[in-house]
Amino acid sequence: MSNGAYDDNNIFAKILRGEIPSHKVFEDEVAVAFMDVMPQGTGHTLVLPKAASRNLLDADEETLTALMPRVQKIARAVQKAFNAEGVTIMQFNEGAGGQTVFHLHVHVIPRFEGVALARHSDQMEKPEVLAENAEKIRVALQGQ
Amino acid sequence: MSNGAYDDNNIFAKILRGEIPSHKVFEDEVAVAFMDVMPQGTGHTLVLPKAASRNLLDADEETLTALMPRVQKIARAVQKAFNAEGVTIMQFNEGAGGQTVFHLHVHVIPRFEGVALARHSDQMEKPEVLAENAEKIRVALQGQ
Repeated sequence: MSNGAYDDNNIFAKILRGEIPSHKVFEDEVAVAFMDVMPQGTGHTLVLPKAASRNLLDADEETLTALMPRVQKIARAVQKAFNAEGVTIMQFNEGAGGQTVFHLHVHVIPRFEGVALARHSDQMEKPEVLAENAEKIRVALQGQ
Repeated sequence: MSNGAYDDNNIFAKILRGEIPSHKVFEDEVAVAFMDVMPQGTGHTLVLPKAASRNLLDADEETLTALMPRVQKIARAVQKAFNAEGVTIMQFNEGAGGQTVFHLHVHVIPRFEGVALARHSDQMEKPEVLAENAEKIRVALQGQ
């Protein structure tokens, strides 16, 4: 397994530094959540620790311990925001494991009966759709 | 979303109580890991908190905080045990989210370039294969 080093020029590191915009729905001292621009379902959101780690395999315990309650918070919010019947959580490690951006992140995807997960494509979702979905999640988070 | 109550007759609760056998690879005071009997890939392992919760949506913070370092431990062990090129983590919430057993659990699946995840089927893996894979993971855990 080719566990490389952390490269702080990855796109999520740039988003965390504010060098690239995102449709952000949540931020606190340790984590950030924003919309996946190539969603596998409506409301597909990513939750990232601010601390630099490549993925789950090299993350330190403090980072991991803080992450899961934030993932739960976002899972509950997307459930409410989209009136979802289920939520699928995925986290990919290394290319063979499905990882494409090498900063630890967790996928939170609202799910509905009879609707399969879309495959990741090169097709970006329209910014106005992402903005609208992000706003729904922000509203849901305010009610928590 | 039909968040039901926790039913302590679910199959994982029975495994946790020792009423049903499993190919266990890890146990400590808060979590257990054992082989998925319908693996989506070689070495597919499940990590469960001992505390009763239906899924991520209703789990308490203490349960979640303890869980992720155990998931990491198992992810590193399966990577080593099967010389995996990647690891995919999945966690399903409610039926629409892919959940079939309603005790919180995390899927840890070793991955290899060019090998897609198998779909969950009704086909049980041979017990001797599960036993052999469990032993590889136990050996890898001893080296951690």
